Amino acid sequence: MSDSIEQLSVALGDRSYPIYIGSELLGRSELIGPFIKQKKALVVTNTTVAPLYLASLEAALIQAGIEPISVVLPDGEQFKNWETLNLIFDALLGARCERGTTLIALGGGVVGDMGGFAAACYQRGMPFIQVPTTLLSQVDSSVGGKTAINHPMGKNMIGAFYQPQLVLADISTLNTLPDRELKAGLAEVIKYGLIRDVNFLVWLEGNLGSLLARDPDALGFAIRRSCANKAEVVAADEKETGERALLNLGHTFGHAIETGMGYGEWLHGEAVAAGTLIAAELSCKLGWLNEASVGRIEDLFVRAGLPVKAPKLGVAKYLELMSHDKKVQEGRLRLVLLESIGKAVVSDLASTEQIAAAIEARCT
Amino acid sequence: MSDSIEQLSVALGDRSYPIYIGSELLGRSELIGPFIKQKKALVVTNTTVAPLYLASLEAALIQAGIEPISVVLPDGEQFKNWETLNLIFDALLGARCERGTTLIALGGGVVGDMGGFAAACYQRGMPFIQVPTTLLSQVDSSVGGKTAINHPMGKNMIGAFYQPQLVLADISTLNTLPDRELKAGLAEVIKYGLIRDVNFLVWLEGNLGSLLARDPDALGFAIRRSCANKAEVVAADEKETGERALLNLGHTFGHAIETGMGYGEWLHGEAVAAGTLIAAELSCKLGWLNEASVGRIEDLFVRAGLPVKAPKLGVAKYLELMSHDKKVQEGRLRLVLLESIGKAVVSDLASTEQIAAAIEARCT
Repeated sequence: MSDSIEQLSVALGDRSYPIYIGSELLGRSELIGPFIKQKKALVVTNTTVAPLYLASLEAALIQAGIEPISVVLPDGEQFKNWETLNLIFDALLGARCERGTTLIALGGGVVGDMGGFAAACYQRGMPFIQVPTTLLSQVDSSVGGKTAINHPMGKNMIGAFYQPQLVLADISTLNTLPDRELKAGLAEVIKYGLIRDVNFLVWLEGNLGSLLARDPDALGFAIRRSCANKAEVVAADEKETGERALLNLGHTFGHAIETGMGYGEWLHGEAVAAGTLIAAELSCKLGWLNEASVGRIEDLFVRAGLPVKAPKLGVAKYLELMSHDKKVQEGRLRLVLLESIGKAVVSDLASTEQIAAAIEARCT
Repeated sequence: MSDSIEQLSVALGDRSYPIYIGSELLGRSELIGPFIKQKKALVVTNTTVAPLYLASLEAALIQAGIEPISVVLPDGEQFKNWETLNLIFDALLGARCERGTTLIALGGGVVGDMGGFAAACYQRGMPFIQVPTTLLSQVDSSVGGKTAINHPMGKNMIGAFYQPQLVLADISTLNTLPDRELKAGLAEVIKYGLIRDVNFLVWLEGNLGSLLARDPDALGFAIRRSCANKAEVVAADEKETGERALLNLGHTFGHAIETGMGYGEWLHGEAVAAGTLIAAELSCKLGWLNEASVGRIEDLFVRAGLPVKAPKLGVAKYLELMSHDKKVQEGRLRLVLLESIGKAVVSDLASTEQIAAAIEARCT
């Protein structure tokens, strides 16, 4: 355990905010305190995280002179919907939270996405803070202001771009993370290497064992490097009019898997892993990647314990689900594909037949 | 009927947009067409407005080469909630609307607030257009980007600041507006005179009869003058960190009336009228307005056929409902009050006793 805190910044003008990364940060009142303006804060968390970390965060808030209130949501992607979101609004109104009250999302991607969306909408916008407690949320979803809930017809269909005041990533919380969740987080870590940071990919190939063994130095490096990549992309294209879409490598296929299987069956990272392999397969069919490169990607995901085959939903079902993707323009699917390892592009060059063949090739 | 179109602008940098005001604008494809980028648009309207104006708007869209789809909501403030909002999302997803598809809100304040909020959230934001068909929405709610739905505990508690691409105010649609709705709209018109435009107030005192008789020139002037006031305030303070709050004269009390009576019992404008009289009463108790001024305000609302007495919910209930107001800071109520006729201020100077006494004095 180290006392050092790494600080990164998401540069968005007067809405810029820091990302603190380090061990045992949750309980340190001097870190979170200065970011909270009023005397009360609402912590949004879930039934899994609350028994582990809520008391520690609440103690830090109390020490900073802030009265903590909390709402504990059911855990899982299948609860990322209106009904659960309304539990947050009920708590906010029940505790007379104001437009200036701070909402703190303590948990993984689902808690962060819902807490952030609730903060975006409550009284048309209240301040919020992300305290991610899973690898996936620490390296990806807590940074950049994408918030959303799911619709039965499509993942993350209803949401907002809404930036937090602070991201507080306490690496120590990963000690209690189930293996399956750790692996799912690695899918998004590997993503950064594939789309724009080939040196990081090489590092990952050399250090995957340490990550899986939860070596804190390796985890710390991977989280910092991932966040640095994410922060750079978000600062350049906050609302995804261009480059930011590249962060969605594997996500169009992945979202189809998550929605098609029923939310919560596949973890988001698992679906992204299988989706990335479909994207790689398609990039190969377009003549951009060779088979050795596809094999190299597959090897890394396999070593990370992630699925490299997609579920047999049927090609028609995949295409139907993908037709709701947020990148569709005038009915035409735009996919994030790989020109080479380390260089992703958004492309509508693939024909429906090629897309279908890539899905087919990757379905077990 | 005149062919002239008045054009105002809401100046918000690269998110600036025009307000077109005139007669028989709905069916003119050359007005709305240029603001729609894709070949499909979703019209959100309600069961009252659809039989009157949907066909005309759809014809204009088709003429502009745009395929219209529509969703018809139940009519009334009591439907401004999650359930109805989800009907819009279902329609958007069912018709495979994209992030670039335009949503058009055709109707009054409820349709505009819900359509706008749906547009703000769908795929994290799609373009939208306001086509207001009531006096209240033409002079107030369609301009400025406030969108929201209600929560059982408070009006407009869940929403977004989200600006339209265009406001198309067709004065001819007021021909079918019920008298009660026309009068309710006048409450917001009078508001502009009271808070910042005393010359307009004098004009209203002289021309109220023409407005109630639906004289098109008088209505046109009142709508333009109201929109000009609104546009100026919004351009100066889009997100209500200061001056914009003044537009809420009578609204803190009014929202309490709407929520307390059950959404839809009192029209918004009616509640604002009664609420404005409470605010005037309180301004008098603080020594800012004299009784003659309160009487002058009351006279104008009486002539407009609007309520000047609030319902007997009980003072405790009013205070409880008002404690959820968006202007509350650190538990302290901030109210829009009148320093004089034509000059509103936001103030936390009134004591709970004074507020209670003003409510008491105005309850029938």
